[in-house]
Amino acid sequence: MSLETVILKMAEAARQAARQLRRLDSGTKNRALQRMAEGLMEKKDQILGENALDVASASNAGLSPAMVDRLILNDSRIKEMADAVVEVASLPDPVGRILGLLRRPNGLLVGRMRIPLGVIGFIYESRPNVTMDAAALCLKSGNAVILKGGSEAHRSNIVLGQICSEALKDTGISPDAIQVIPTTQREAVGLLVGLSDYLDVIIPRGGEELIRFVSNNAKVPVLKHYKGVCHIYVDEDADLSLALDVCFNAKVQRPGVCNAMETLLVHRGIASEFLPQMLRRFTEAGVEIRGCPRTLAIFPEAVEAVEADWPAEFLDLILAVKVVENMDEAMDHIERYGSNHTEAIITRDYNNSQRFLAEVDSSVVLVNASTRFNDGNQLGLGAEIGINTSKLHSFGPMGPEEMTATKFIVFGQGQLRT
Amino acid sequence: MSLETVILKMAEAARQAARQLRRLDSGTKNRALQRMAEGLMEKKDQILGENALDVASASNAGLSPAMVDRLILNDSRIKEMADAVVEVASLPDPVGRILGLLRRPNGLLVGRMRIPLGVIGFIYESRPNVTMDAAALCLKSGNAVILKGGSEAHRSNIVLGQICSEALKDTGISPDAIQVIPTTQREAVGLLVGLSDYLDVIIPRGGEELIRFVSNNAKVPVLKHYKGVCHIYVDEDADLSLALDVCFNAKVQRPGVCNAMETLLVHRGIASEFLPQMLRRFTEAGVEIRGCPRTLAIFPEAVEAVEADWPAEFLDLILAVKVVENMDEAMDHIERYGSNHTEAIITRDYNNSQRFLAEVDSSVVLVNASTRFNDGNQLGLGAEIGINTSKLHSFGPMGPEEMTATKFIVFGQGQLRT
Repeated sequence: MSLETVILKMAEAARQAARQLRRLDSGTKNRALQRMAEGLMEKKDQILGENALDVASASNAGLSPAMVDRLILNDSRIKEMADAVVEVASLPDPVGRILGLLRRPNGLLVGRMRIPLGVIGFIYESRPNVTMDAAALCLKSGNAVILKGGSEAHRSNIVLGQICSEALKDTGISPDAIQVIPTTQREAVGLLVGLSDYLDVIIPRGGEELIRFVSNNAKVPVLKHYKGVCHIYVDEDADLSLALDVCFNAKVQRPGVCNAMETLLVHRGIASEFLPQMLRRFTEAGVEIRGCPRTLAIFPEAVEAVEADWPAEFLDLILAVKVVENMDEAMDHIERYGSNHTEAIITRDYNNSQRFLAEVDSSVVLVNASTRFNDGNQLGLGAEIGINTSKLHSFGPMGPEEMTATKFIVFGQGQLRT
Repeated sequence: MSLETVILKMAEAARQAARQLRRLDSGTKNRALQRMAEGLMEKKDQILGENALDVASASNAGLSPAMVDRLILNDSRIKEMADAVVEVASLPDPVGRILGLLRRPNGLLVGRMRIPLGVIGFIYESRPNVTMDAAALCLKSGNAVILKGGSEAHRSNIVLGQICSEALKDTGISPDAIQVIPTTQREAVGLLVGLSDYLDVIIPRGGEELIRFVSNNAKVPVLKHYKGVCHIYVDEDADLSLALDVCFNAKVQRPGVCNAMETLLVHRGIASEFLPQMLRRFTEAGVEIRGCPRTLAIFPEAVEAVEADWPAEFLDLILAVKVVENMDEAMDHIERYGSNHTEAIITRDYNNSQRFLAEVDSSVVLVNASTRFNDGNQLGLGAEIGINTSKLHSFGPMGPEEMTATKFIVFGQGQLRT
């Protein structure tokens, strides 16, 4: 059977499974999630065995130690995976919820009911735990999913997929509701994203190159973000001690993630007071500072920033710093160089806080809090499958509810259109 | 300047205008809408003059009388266009509305704010009034729009676009917020739908061929429906007198539109009582009946349906009729042949009404009411720019609110991620 036929048959099976899934009650879905978690613990040795083969191949292939480390599963990581699946089971089920029934003048009662999207194609390149997280969130929200992970985690993903299928079967759900593509061939991605008659949405997660490839080739709608070039603007009227802590947290707590701060914008009125303390604290933590000329005048240890630093997602202990005339210049800078991901203002000024919230065009806009809070769990969605920086469907982090649609339901008494 | 450059410059200008638009208060937008309506009345003679040229070209080109009629503007149609724009002004402004601020355990206050989508490409082939409707809805929802109408209405659309631009200028809004593509070249569509760095969404409205072309060529997300193959299922326990009226309304009141009934499904338990009355009423109104064998046995005047009749959108006085064993067979038929657009059940049975509402996978599902109610105005959205039968973003009719996105807003007091 050709790869094309394999992928097509998987998509057809997923479509069938989706029809069953959208009618399932929450209890059955939660029992299947519980069985998935139990399966992880029961099949621990098998998972560790396959994972060891993945890790050995990756080392032989010369992957960086950091990359190899992300692949490794052990007892505690498997336990964390199982706990995460149980946590998804404990979340409220968005499906079937009815949002506001309103009576029309002609007596029709009109509302909206949450329904699954259908079939999701999830394409990723990171750690094997993402396989279980995505499978659990799709099942919870009533969606069938086809999973295509990175080839370096292929053996681990296959056994995780088997655990999901068995859990589904044990609960009377079609095992086709969660399918792992059984090949490392890269062509599989191109084939999958073309199946617009079978898939409802593609969610890619990984490096910018993967996401561009998916976006450029997809015939199915794609929910994605390319990168997170997140800014914090420290206003003239900021609480400087609060600003020091929030900016430090946003840059240093976990620099390699999409919601870490990449550029710091500082009002010129407080730059000479704030920047020396702030940048000293950063450099002591190993952060390289790339500053505009006014930053350099205040903090000569900084490197001079070049144009390429402003739109850069460093994902590292590097920070671009710019002194601005006022909030308008800060917002212009964000408009020009930002990625519509996450932006924060530090201020005690009421009007500026309101304007920044209203005018900045990012999926999460914060006042006096760290950009690191752009996360489904932190914002109260329960969990997230990814962050969307295109405005269609759901702008920002996507939890189980954001993985659903709504249809209109209408209760009539014989109403006619005249 | 090449056509490619023209379209690109329009898109850049729209992007700039969108930045102004998203910050505009409702009062300014409503004043511009008011000016658009006034402009229509003031420039009536100019509109009628350009429209007469369009109509003459269309007649000379041999367009059908029905097509030519749809093009024609006259005093009362211009007045209706102006009234529709004023009505859009009177709708609530969705932009800036904040949906539920909730306190997180760490004290963060998290909510969502409605924001415009950005730049909309609207591609259509119907009457000139659609130009004004789309322009008004985009402005109301804070979106810039690039309009590409049918070439047969080109002169009319150009003058309507000028009226919009002048109204915007008079109100201090960038005239680039509403732009009409100044050419009849078909290539303009292909160029427009490729501009993924400038446009946020494409909304095509028209025949299936246009919509397939847009979908197949777009690099920008598309909200659309291909066709409306709408079903009514008359259950065994239906109120037959109600069923007669609702089915008649759904087929005959306006057969050429996407929410008209195309297939009638009838439970076998009531078929011999219901179908003779129903189908006689239809044939007396000039409806051609294409029936399954069991329908023919009850109503021999019917034509025998062929396979191609079940997925057909007749848009005409033609109806496919099938007798089914039970509701499950009806829902299977809808799943197989339907278009996820609009389906209704006629029943007095509580359980069947609930199951039909929950399980049928269409953008609008009704109990005891005509399929003709799938319409933004009828369902309480105020107005609609189109109907979306893909589940992404907004499933079903789209009004001003559905032409927006939400971003997360977060009020903090120095919270850090740990």
